[in-house]
Amino acid sequence: MIRITIIGMGLIGASLGMALRSANGKEAPLGQIQVTGYDKDSRATSNARGRLAIDREARNLGEALREAQLVVVAVPVQAVREVFAAIAPVLPSGCIVTDVSSVKRQVMVWARELLPASAEFVGGHPMAGKERTGPAAAAPDLFKGAVYCLTPSPRASQMAIDLVDSLVRQVGAKTYFIDPDEHDAYVAGVSHLPFLLSAALVEATSSSPAWKEMAPLAATGYRDISRLASGDPEMHRDICMTNRAAIVRWLDEATRVLLDMRDQIEAGKGDDLLQRFERVRDAREEWLNNRPNLRPGEADFENVFNVAVERPNLFGRWGRGRRR
Amino acid sequence: MIRITIIGMGLIGASLGMALRSANGKEAPLGQIQVTGYDKDSRATSNARGRLAIDREARNLGEALREAQLVVVAVPVQAVREVFAAIAPVLPSGCIVTDVSSVKRQVMVWARELLPASAEFVGGHPMAGKERTGPAAAAPDLFKGAVYCLTPSPRASQMAIDLVDSLVRQVGAKTYFIDPDEHDAYVAGVSHLPFLLSAALVEATSSSPAWKEMAPLAATGYRDISRLASGDPEMHRDICMTNRAAIVRWLDEATRVLLDMRDQIEAGKGDDLLQRFERVRDAREEWLNNRPNLRPGEADFENVFNVAVERPNLFGRWGRGRRR
Repeated sequence: MIRITIIGMGLIGASLGMALRSANGKEAPLGQIQVTGYDKDSRATSNARGRLAIDREARNLGEALREAQLVVVAVPVQAVREVFAAIAPVLPSGCIVTDVSSVKRQVMVWARELLPASAEFVGGHPMAGKERTGPAAAAPDLFKGAVYCLTPSPRASQMAIDLVDSLVRQVGAKTYFIDPDEHDAYVAGVSHLPFLLSAALVEATSSSPAWKEMAPLAATGYRDISRLASGDPEMHRDICMTNRAAIVRWLDEATRVLLDMRDQIEAGKGDDLLQRFERVRDAREEWLNNRPNLRPGEADFENVFNVAVERPNLFGRWGRGRRR
Repeated sequence: MIRITIIGMGLIGASLGMALRSANGKEAPLGQIQVTGYDKDSRATSNARGRLAIDREARNLGEALREAQLVVVAVPVQAVREVFAAIAPVLPSGCIVTDVSSVKRQVMVWARELLPASAEFVGGHPMAGKERTGPAAAAPDLFKGAVYCLTPSPRASQMAIDLVDSLVRQVGAKTYFIDPDEHDAYVAGVSHLPFLLSAALVEATSSSPAWKEMAPLAATGYRDISRLASGDPEMHRDICMTNRAAIVRWLDEATRVLLDMRDQIEAGKGDDLLQRFERVRDAREEWLNNRPNLRPGEADFENVFNVAVERPNLFGRWGRGRRR
């Protein structure tokens, strides 16, 4: 049996617990597991226990980590540093540590600086979420079919990598190995930039003196493009603070595009706008059709899952995006 | 019985036909109706007929308009001018005309210039849509609960206004009377700007040299914020060309907000960003909670519907956003 401890009973922590436990059993990628949950807010831990996200509630970090073999740090990015510092003295020797943060370079640096050499770190980032937060919004199928980035530290062993890879597959997600810097640059474009565009829409419209009259005209288009703006402000502040350079580059690029559109509209360049909108429509169609961008070994994820169950030695080779 | 002709069998035209016909009957706001459909592409008309969106197919404009009492022009904005010019000589005397365009000032000007004095024009804009286009995407519930803007021309009679108002209620939508200039300014903010932000996201990301590697990381957030970018390029080109000044003003405002966010991120101003994201989250929550921004007489739309059926003389007074 593998003893897993999840620190942080928010949306992601509680959902991971639910997903792990609902797939629990001899046939599951991780085999038999026991999940312990801890949150500095004990009500969140109780809530998660009540929703069957964990087997055991821990009242403090020492209790949470006693005998843990795999620790998942599922707290907001800027709290990760503090949690690493707090768990470092009490981590059992050989314990494997992973996280779920949207930013990887900074987390890798903290892991190297703060975690003991005996703890192997494999950074993680499930590409799944909701605008609602907290354990009450948690769901066991949150990760189903989602891409789950892993950024193993240079000193992580193959066994540690395989264990976190199995966790990814047990929650129904697809492992995607990636360099931390590439991860941060890419995620800034496909995740952090969309949030900022969504927030800019809501700020620009809702701060207008005419907002009260405009609001009833806002329909499903507005609802969808503004959805991310309902996200957790602290989480997004943390992301912006820990991935500054990459986000600024993407904001500059998006602003350049918007200014160019603006000039074409003002100048009445209908043909240029039409071509532009056609290119954009086609690019999105292609993304929708190819998504997820399957890679060798990933194409038949469902089959790989079954093969892995029968031949556990293949865990490390299959079900992966790419290996660097 | 009221004879209604819909010109243009795209998503909106065919959906209007379906919604009108599925509510057809003595008890409906319009009483008994007969819907004739026409599209310059006869396959679209046949498709709409096959999907029960219309009672009769017309093969040409003359046939479409013969005996029509209410004409709905449901073509892309820039084609409205051409359609007005084409129907003007064959419109039956006293026929009432409405449209469904996203832009109202320009359409009001064309109506005044091109339609005969005997034709009463009441501009219309249902705040509902989909990213898919054409009659195959049509649905009878597309307008259910949606706000439907009406911009009556100064020479439209109360009877003409009441008739179009009844059409709005028959398709399950809520009438919102508004000045054409205000409409265009507001809709630029809550509808045209969201499209351009969505398109800018897709253009900025998909034109990156790293797009192939990034695309698999794009998840539900990217999918939602990019949704509008799949919209009809010609329709959006037309909107941009006919509502230029208002759209440019909103693009400038959104760009100002993005540049300000960029500077705060670069300067590491976490507290300012947190406040900003909290304000934006709260503004969206408020919009979601109050939406649709109910007005006197609108609050109990379902009841109003029943009252109106029993006392048709109240049509003109109830079920309205506001009256100028």
